[in-house]
Amino acid sequence: MTASELEVIGWSEGKLWFLDQTLLPGEERRIETDDPTVVADAIRRLAIRGAPLIGIAAAFGFTLGFLAQSAFRNVPLRSRVERLFTLFAATRPTAVNLFKALERVKECALSHSDREADLERLLLQEAQAIHEEEKTMCREIARNGSVLLLPGSVVVTHCNTGALATGGKGTALGVIREAWERGALRHVYIDETRPLLQGARLTTWELQKLGIPSTLITDSTAAFLMLQNRINVVVVGADRIAANGDTANKIGTYALALAARHHGIPFYVAAPTSTLDLATPTGKEIPIEVRGAEELVLQGLRRVAPEHTEAYSPAFDVTPADLIMAVITDRGIARPPYEQSLAAAVEASEKVSP
Amino acid sequence: MTASELEVIGWSEGKLWFLDQTLLPGEERRIETDDPTVVADAIRRLAIRGAPLIGIAAAFGFTLGFLAQSAFRNVPLRSRVERLFTLFAATRPTAVNLFKALERVKECALSHSDREADLERLLLQEAQAIHEEEKTMCREIARNGSVLLLPGSVVVTHCNTGALATGGKGTALGVIREAWERGALRHVYIDETRPLLQGARLTTWELQKLGIPSTLITDSTAAFLMLQNRINVVVVGADRIAANGDTANKIGTYALALAARHHGIPFYVAAPTSTLDLATPTGKEIPIEVRGAEELVLQGLRRVAPEHTEAYSPAFDVTPADLIMAVITDRGIARPPYEQSLAAAVEASEKVSP
Repeated sequence: MTASELEVIGWSEGKLWFLDQTLLPGEERRIETDDPTVVADAIRRLAIRGAPLIGIAAAFGFTLGFLAQSAFRNVPLRSRVERLFTLFAATRPTAVNLFKALERVKECALSHSDREADLERLLLQEAQAIHEEEKTMCREIARNGSVLLLPGSVVVTHCNTGALATGGKGTALGVIREAWERGALRHVYIDETRPLLQGARLTTWELQKLGIPSTLITDSTAAFLMLQNRINVVVVGADRIAANGDTANKIGTYALALAARHHGIPFYVAAPTSTLDLATPTGKEIPIEVRGAEELVLQGLRRVAPEHTEAYSPAFDVTPADLIMAVITDRGIARPPYEQSLAAAVEASEKVSP
Repeated sequence: MTASELEVIGWSEGKLWFLDQTLLPGEERRIETDDPTVVADAIRRLAIRGAPLIGIAAAFGFTLGFLAQSAFRNVPLRSRVERLFTLFAATRPTAVNLFKALERVKECALSHSDREADLERLLLQEAQAIHEEEKTMCREIARNGSVLLLPGSVVVTHCNTGALATGGKGTALGVIREAWERGALRHVYIDETRPLLQGARLTTWELQKLGIPSTLITDSTAAFLMLQNRINVVVVGADRIAANGDTANKIGTYALALAARHHGIPFYVAAPTSTLDLATPTGKEIPIEVRGAEELVLQGLRRVAPEHTEAYSPAFDVTPADLIMAVITDRGIARPPYEQSLAAAVEASEKVSP
């Protein structure tokens, strides 16, 4: 199995299945369910994660609420739509893909409310379309971005932005992978990505499957490697990009961007147009999910900090647009001023998408 | 027990005892030994850690080799001195206190080689003098540095620089503590300090004992807090400071310094003159200890990264002098140009020390 064929989510005989990413890399366990609340819970506890994959999962999860056997079937249609929408909207507030996907399935359900017998099929088609679109966007991002990685590139990346995050080839990791296939990439440094270690657990796993040489580091080691001229480019993903280019991404991205700026190293964000949120003017308006202290004070079952430790654990930070050299999208490479270039990318995507 | 009275190492009836810091905060276990190799091993595995405390422990550990029952007693004196010196010098290469302390006990042993019967007592006196000097230096550092923290200070610190690191009141943490007692400090953010979590495990523990309000964060969260104007000063310790002011300290310090510089936030290093190494011209000449991959790929007994993951885990990084606003020493506050100010601090310390 290579990561290109890596299936992380899918629909089979009226059920949604997905890989429980909290168990990776130790165990590859599939969870199969016809219960929307199981899917919502999986998103909340990061068994399903990555902005594009969250959107895909929410669309499928919403669809589950319209199956014949669903507990939600007893609720009147409009109320059912609202309850399912709210169920998923409450899982993770930062990723915009979630809300875009939910809007699409909600719109699908409401616009066909007179054909309730067909709704399961129609919603499933919509969810599958969202999944296919994300796969296509990944391929386009990889093609557009890989040319930015010059021969001899040694890249550092953060969190996980591969198949496990996108349901496709990946965003930042798709760019990295295509640069490797083109012979331009020499090495990848992987930020472990505290507190949930998506880099250590997932990105290492994907790159090893792809045979791409990589080295795991703690998040704050990247700056020191830059000081030693051992890294020459940064590529990261995004959870939401505001109209002005300010980018919410996994906590640690901003510190990485500052280090890149200080060392004159290009800092690229790779994201599908589904992650662009023109309705949010700047990063200041992006809600930042704050996670529980237990992710800092516990390691598995072992308590690492004392009993009454207070912790602040934002899941994301916001990197101001002026630290970002370019945003690699499926509709081309957006450069400053981002107000124009990101709007153009969104416009291009809307011309062809349904 | 408050941290001011916190005893972390001591000599009792011909044995050295020390707190095993790898077990904190869960368990306060004392290890008692008359075997130098047990002490060296404790330093290597970070049961004893912190540049000043390593020096103290090495001096006591060296002394153990001269006890009547020591296995080292069968070795001729000069060879015994060399073997004990090498045993401890090989534990951790970055902290200069280790080498300074070892030079002192070595010199003591060689200069009294004609009084071998007295050596145990003489060496013990020397080791105890080193311990007392570190305690005094901590008090002076705290007094000198606390005035730099203005009323309303919200500080971020890295790693552990308190009683557990110094055998005294602490370096950076001593400054923070005295600022708190003077009413200038509002809050402390504690970097968890990957990979070994000295911030999460030890600094939280000390600050809670002192009743100083603190919040635990992941290392790369500090930059995001600075962007939100929620931190206004940085104080860290040091493992070795070169003649030009370049400072080796726990990995992550450099990234923190870069973030502070970008946000115009003062960045202070607090260290005893025993940490100043005028014989090392710049940071480039400071050897950086690289630790094993297991500290990144394992969490306790649980493997978090795949089987064949390669990791790069430097224990320290080097912060260039131009990012450091001042070095707080027991002999006053050194400011740029550091060649002059650090040399003056060392000179002042040599006038009074034995």
